[in-house]
Amino acid sequence: MEQRVSIVTLGVGDLEAARAFYDALGWRTANEGEETASIVAYDLHGMTLCLYPWDKLAEDAQVPPAGEGFRGVVLAYNVRRKEDVAPVLAEAQAAGGRVVKPAQDAFWGGHSGIFADPEGHLWEVAWNPFAPLGKRGEFQWKGCS
Amino acid sequence: MEQRVSIVTLGVGDLEAARAFYDALGWRTANEGEETASIVAYDLHGMTLCLYPWDKLAEDAQVPPAGEGFRGVVLAYNVRRKEDVAPVLAEAQAAGGRVVKPAQDAFWGGHSGIFADPEGHLWEVAWNPFAPLGKRGEFQWKGCS
Repeated sequence: MEQRVSIVTLGVGDLEAARAFYDALGWRTANEGEETASIVAYDLHGMTLCLYPWDKLAEDAQVPPAGEGFRGVVLAYNVRRKEDVAPVLAEAQAAGGRVVKPAQDAFWGGHSGIFADPEGHLWEVAWNPFAPLGKRGEFQWKGCS
Repeated sequence: MEQRVSIVTLGVGDLEAARAFYDALGWRTANEGEETASIVAYDLHGMTLCLYPWDKLAEDAQVPPAGEGFRGVVLAYNVRRKEDVAPVLAEAQAAGGRVVKPAQDAFWGGHSGIFADPEGHLWEVAWNPFAPLGKRGEFQWKGCS
């Protein structure tokens, strides 16, 4: 198995509302048109983030749809400058998300905060001084030591 | 907010065992050494997949760690050929994963199956005839119509 993720699909209870949130963040769908009514796709760098109805996502995986509490998954959005963290959290809140953890210095030497999208999916917004982003925003792990 | 995900972090109950699973799939860590004992990072294409202790991940997000059932997140690993789906599922099973849905034709015209890693994180293995992978394995959504 090669090292890659092709798609991250987030299950959502209200597809239109979830899509409106990411739209409000300035994201543009890769599949605008009829298809967007059943699945919403955003092209990232060589991968795709999809929003898909929660129950259908479970059904497709042939698992029961019930689930609650912490999901054990956090997506991170890294920024270029320390002072970019708080504004991104504010932008997410203005778009209908919820700031779960305000911007603060992290034990590993960076600066970060966390928001939940309207469906409860967690995003960390982080500045990592040890791993600057590439020109296209690409991230490469460089450790913190 | 630009369109990207920098890191997908999966919470795991047993970091060493989870790491052993991805190692067995042939993945190589980006942070081999002391750091790997607390967080395991795999460089993908411009982003990183991390394994991190479940409770610490929740603590970092300042949310209660309890959670059960469907997590509403599925990662997809796309392959180049239809006949690659079943072998990747078998490889995941041999490495300690569990096949949740055997390889089968999908309603959208592709061919896919799903495995759970040892920590219950779901991966779809998919062949999508409408969206061939790029040279480096990069994926771009092209719809299914």
